[in-house]
Amino acid sequence: MVPDKDKSIGITIGDPAGIGPEIVARALSRPSIRRLAKFKVIGDIGVYRRYCKGDFPNVSFVDCGVISSQGCCPAEAGALTGEAAFTYIKKAISLIKTSEISAIVTAPVSKLAIQCAGHKFSGHTEFLAEAAGVDDVGMLFVAGSLRVIIVTRHIPLRDVSSFISKDKVFSTIKLLNEGLRSMFGIKIPCIAVCGLNPHAGEGGKIGIEEMDKIIPAMDLAKQSGIDVHGPYPADTIFVHGISERYDAIVAMYHDQGLIPVKSLAFNRTVNVTLGLPFIRTSPAHGTAFDIAGKGVADPSSMCEAIKLAARLLDINPDKR
Amino acid sequence: MVPDKDKSIGITIGDPAGIGPEIVARALSRPSIRRLAKFKVIGDIGVYRRYCKGDFPNVSFVDCGVISSQGCCPAEAGALTGEAAFTYIKKAISLIKTSEISAIVTAPVSKLAIQCAGHKFSGHTEFLAEAAGVDDVGMLFVAGSLRVIIVTRHIPLRDVSSFISKDKVFSTIKLLNEGLRSMFGIKIPCIAVCGLNPHAGEGGKIGIEEMDKIIPAMDLAKQSGIDVHGPYPADTIFVHGISERYDAIVAMYHDQGLIPVKSLAFNRTVNVTLGLPFIRTSPAHGTAFDIAGKGVADPSSMCEAIKLAARLLDINPDKR
Repeated sequence: MVPDKDKSIGITIGDPAGIGPEIVARALSRPSIRRLAKFKVIGDIGVYRRYCKGDFPNVSFVDCGVISSQGCCPAEAGALTGEAAFTYIKKAISLIKTSEISAIVTAPVSKLAIQCAGHKFSGHTEFLAEAAGVDDVGMLFVAGSLRVIIVTRHIPLRDVSSFISKDKVFSTIKLLNEGLRSMFGIKIPCIAVCGLNPHAGEGGKIGIEEMDKIIPAMDLAKQSGIDVHGPYPADTIFVHGISERYDAIVAMYHDQGLIPVKSLAFNRTVNVTLGLPFIRTSPAHGTAFDIAGKGVADPSSMCEAIKLAARLLDINPDKR
Repeated sequence: MVPDKDKSIGITIGDPAGIGPEIVARALSRPSIRRLAKFKVIGDIGVYRRYCKGDFPNVSFVDCGVISSQGCCPAEAGALTGEAAFTYIKKAISLIKTSEISAIVTAPVSKLAIQCAGHKFSGHTEFLAEAAGVDDVGMLFVAGSLRVIIVTRHIPLRDVSSFISKDKVFSTIKLLNEGLRSMFGIKIPCIAVCGLNPHAGEGGKIGIEEMDKIIPAMDLAKQSGIDVHGPYPADTIFVHGISERYDAIVAMYHDQGLIPVKSLAFNRTVNVTLGLPFIRTSPAHGTAFDIAGKGVADPSSMCEAIKLAARLLDINPDKR
């Protein structure tokens, strides 16, 4: 099978001291992955080559020239590796803008290392949104047929209730619905919404956010023609045989959405950014500095991220 | 195999209008279950017989005489079925006190129906604790090798942070440790503790309860000789291959503990009460009025509850 010439995926290798370079190299060493598209690996050649065996020449490499192989050791992240990781992301964005690549797959970075290098950076998702000039983006977690979006992200649990509003729940449902339609090609997505409280509040007996915020947001969504169901108790909606009834599930907070996704499919979980004008996926795990450079990093999640990016390009030929 | 004459398990059939009578009858129709122990089914004979095929005479039945088979229809719970369900529990307690049974397995009841019948009742666990004269009880969820206890139960999510205290976390760890030792026969239980916040607070960046309450409680536990680890991010501690390193996991709130347990093993989840002077297990699901009387209720969780009660009696011959 000859890769579609128009379908090129850019892959950033992430923090040079993390497992990013290794999982990219291991993923691309698999013929089943390489034949999915044309690839441009974005990073520093000396760092990347360390993890390559004979199969290096098969993909094209965009060398950013920040760091040499001697300039960094696995697990030793700092301002230099942060600067490198940040440069790779910026390079990927410029390649998207010049249409040299059609999708971005990002390996994990350390926010702290990028901040140490003097950059304002609160995560890939936010940075890509700003670069693309869009406000309303969302993180969708995909693990096989399970798709989960979270309304609130990295905030203390005690603040979740006050961060949640009718508007925020509605805009998340809307973003999800549009993403499932436009990116995933699902004509009328069927969406389930979790309650915030145990047993989804039991009609107000265990919390009132369902009645005050979530149900009104769902009513608004229904009025917009969105096929939305719930709010359901979060402890049973992810059960096998139930979650499959929905194209995606809206969770109210980080652990409510991430516990089931990671518990059920840790090494297959992929993060997709909704709301961007281009396709961006990534593995759902972090830099794993503790095992970097040891040759034991599992590339499964990176493989899934690449496969999903390729599949989304197939569904959206206009995005190539 | 002849059942141990001294090992008798009482099984309450739960709300007569729920799936309780059906799952008890279906579980006990299996020879593999029946040979585990002697059983006393506690309920109303007319209600129970409706769900029995030819195998009824194999277990002894304690008829409470509250309700006739004509007196109740599946799915129609109310004051009468609540009164019946309440009577079965009281009968089970009196049989425990007279040593006629050595363990209780409870089928699901409706709190609302029991309250309608005029009784103060906030759940099996609390009621049994009061009857046994103990204060400090806990709900342990068991699904295969996964055991999870929750620090807070049915409270609104916004109140979880203020309900959690160093004392409460410590007493939960202690109760769990003692339960694993005395009931499960684990000499030095290895216990993992979840953080409250995303990423277990990231060293204070996403919430302070880990530093203010959870870690001090764990320090206290360590000083008492308990082998306790964490606090860990809740989205990765339940991952297959990680959770198995621990004998049990302490979750801070309902959905944090119940999402992984039910998502990973919905129809195998059993609830065990820790802190009682006798053994009590139950399936982790509810009355399921919507499917009651339709012949489709899945007895798997009830079977697991009976198997676990029998196993705990084997481990604790003194409790017979």
